[in-house]
Amino acid sequence: MQRGRLASIPRTMGDDKTARQAPTNNGLTTPEDAVKRVLGGERRALAHAITELERMSPTAPKLLQALQPHLGNALVLGITGPPGAGKSTLVNAIIKHLRTKGKRVGVIAVDPSSPVSGGAILGDRIRMTAALDDNDVFVRSLASRGYLGGLSPAAVRIIDALDAGKFDIILLETVGTGQNEIDVAEVADIRIVISAPGLGDDIQAMKSGLLEIADILVVNKGDRDDAERTMHQLIGALSIRASTGKKVPVLKTTATTGAGVAELMQAVLDLGVEIRSAPQAERRRKRARYLIARAAADLVAGRIKGGSTKGLNDLSDAVLAGTLRPEDAAKKLLKD
Amino acid sequence: MQRGRLASIPRTMGDDKTARQAPTNNGLTTPEDAVKRVLGGERRALAHAITELERMSPTAPKLLQALQPHLGNALVLGITGPPGAGKSTLVNAIIKHLRTKGKRVGVIAVDPSSPVSGGAILGDRIRMTAALDDNDVFVRSLASRGYLGGLSPAAVRIIDALDAGKFDIILLETVGTGQNEIDVAEVADIRIVISAPGLGDDIQAMKSGLLEIADILVVNKGDRDDAERTMHQLIGALSIRASTGKKVPVLKTTATTGAGVAELMQAVLDLGVEIRSAPQAERRRKRARYLIARAAADLVAGRIKGGSTKGLNDLSDAVLAGTLRPEDAAKKLLKD
Repeated sequence: MQRGRLASIPRTMGDDKTARQAPTNNGLTTPEDAVKRVLGGERRALAHAITELERMSPTAPKLLQALQPHLGNALVLGITGPPGAGKSTLVNAIIKHLRTKGKRVGVIAVDPSSPVSGGAILGDRIRMTAALDDNDVFVRSLASRGYLGGLSPAAVRIIDALDAGKFDIILLETVGTGQNEIDVAEVADIRIVISAPGLGDDIQAMKSGLLEIADILVVNKGDRDDAERTMHQLIGALSIRASTGKKVPVLKTTATTGAGVAELMQAVLDLGVEIRSAPQAERRRKRARYLIARAAADLVAGRIKGGSTKGLNDLSDAVLAGTLRPEDAAKKLLKD
Repeated sequence: MQRGRLASIPRTMGDDKTARQAPTNNGLTTPEDAVKRVLGGERRALAHAITELERMSPTAPKLLQALQPHLGNALVLGITGPPGAGKSTLVNAIIKHLRTKGKRVGVIAVDPSSPVSGGAILGDRIRMTAALDDNDVFVRSLASRGYLGGLSPAAVRIIDALDAGKFDIILLETVGTGQNEIDVAEVADIRIVISAPGLGDDIQAMKSGLLEIADILVVNKGDRDDAERTMHQLIGALSIRASTGKKVPVLKTTATTGAGVAELMQAVLDLGVEIRSAPQAERRRKRARYLIARAAADLVAGRIKGGSTKGLNDLSDAVLAGTLRPEDAAKKLLKD
């Protein structure tokens, strides 16, 4: 019964079920009108605009251009971590906290496009947003790009729409597989990596990658006996790479009670002051460069993997024979 | 006490602690000699050769060339899956089963180079290989490439050494974060994806990526009540993409008792017949192409992410404005 109900809920939440039924561009609404309504805080207009941007409809470019003058206020927080760390619960607690401070919160939850998990993850999103009827919270669940869980390019456009819609903080939550970790690192202004005590060997191993991208480390489930030990392990692991000069706070939260969330958000806002001082155009270009770089990498890798020219076969044989490093073979290929 | 003991065990197992102390190329051993000893089943010689290949010592190219005529017999099984599925226990059970059939088994365990997890994962490896003093089982724990857990290029060279050393089956086990999943797909002859009931939402989500690369799906912890349900979910998810024409067996194992392992290995050997019929040079070239493709993708992506030329800024702005797709921007860039 419960499962059936969940399965019938559309991927995209907010009010846009209605919006989707509205005509896309019937001459009554222009992109300028749409933007005016988004700026005016009309929830339905925002949901509609986001849907246009997600599917990159014909009107989307005009919409994006009309949004341009109104961008640069939002702070994008990437939230990632291994399975079982309690990301969704913590996101929920962060929303609650930010609402008490009068902040408007957008959430983009990257949801691998899996027939297996669709229902379950939407279930999560629904539990997460008890605040769904709050006009100052907007949640969008987003399918991931392709089969390995990378971030959809649509996420970058949706960030712009939420920014223009005067959401102060945008939470970009990913499930924390490898590709997602990279993607959050490239797109977010601040990267929060969530861990928890007792996650086991494999998950500890994932931390090695996550440690590298973290601006703030959080040990959730802080009410557990072994939370302190996990914190000390993380602090120890961080000190090994302290040579990078980046100071990474390690904080403890208990998402279920909200303990530690205020301190976490204070750390975020402290970092945010510095980040906002950077030119806004450069912050946004960095996101675009990431999209272009990934597309170029895919193109190049695809051509090489599928290739069977004599030149490529010779280079492959040289790599197998140990007379050429893959990097040097790649350089040679790229020159040609 | 236990922890301290683990921490002092070298990353690389087998007999090569002794081998490492032996002179690398003191005029007494030539690569041809070394290969002769590897082919003759000398464990210490194999361990030494692998160490040379792992760190790509000056003698490694000659060694690889001397190995060439003796390659192509081993079947490489990629074993991956989400954390908590019981990969290590199943690898252990597979080793036991293959030993009863007289097969020689090499294991390459890709171990993210994490200061946090190092000890824990080595602990796993040790539990796994009760068979460490068996001359027909060889285990090598391998650091991952870079910070996101990709497969080290050394793995491809070590496959060759184990192949020449007459190991029939090479198990390439990865912890199953995103990058590793791709890597196993590219390098292995057969990809076994391990799941288990009751792994929770996040982990179910990871399955979407793993499903795509699987040649065989295994539901481990098959003695649990909900194992059947997990199997049906997976079979359902597979049927959705049945259009690819690839038939993916879904098997049930209980690694702790060994139940189902014989059936799993039979499915592997059935697939292996077909795979071995493909030209051996092409199987190996595919691995080399993957290494070259990845290096090229990294080079290209790195240049674009770090770039700030006028041309790139213009393309970035066009992507942000929605007038150019990232893919088209990438094509333009690659042309220049």
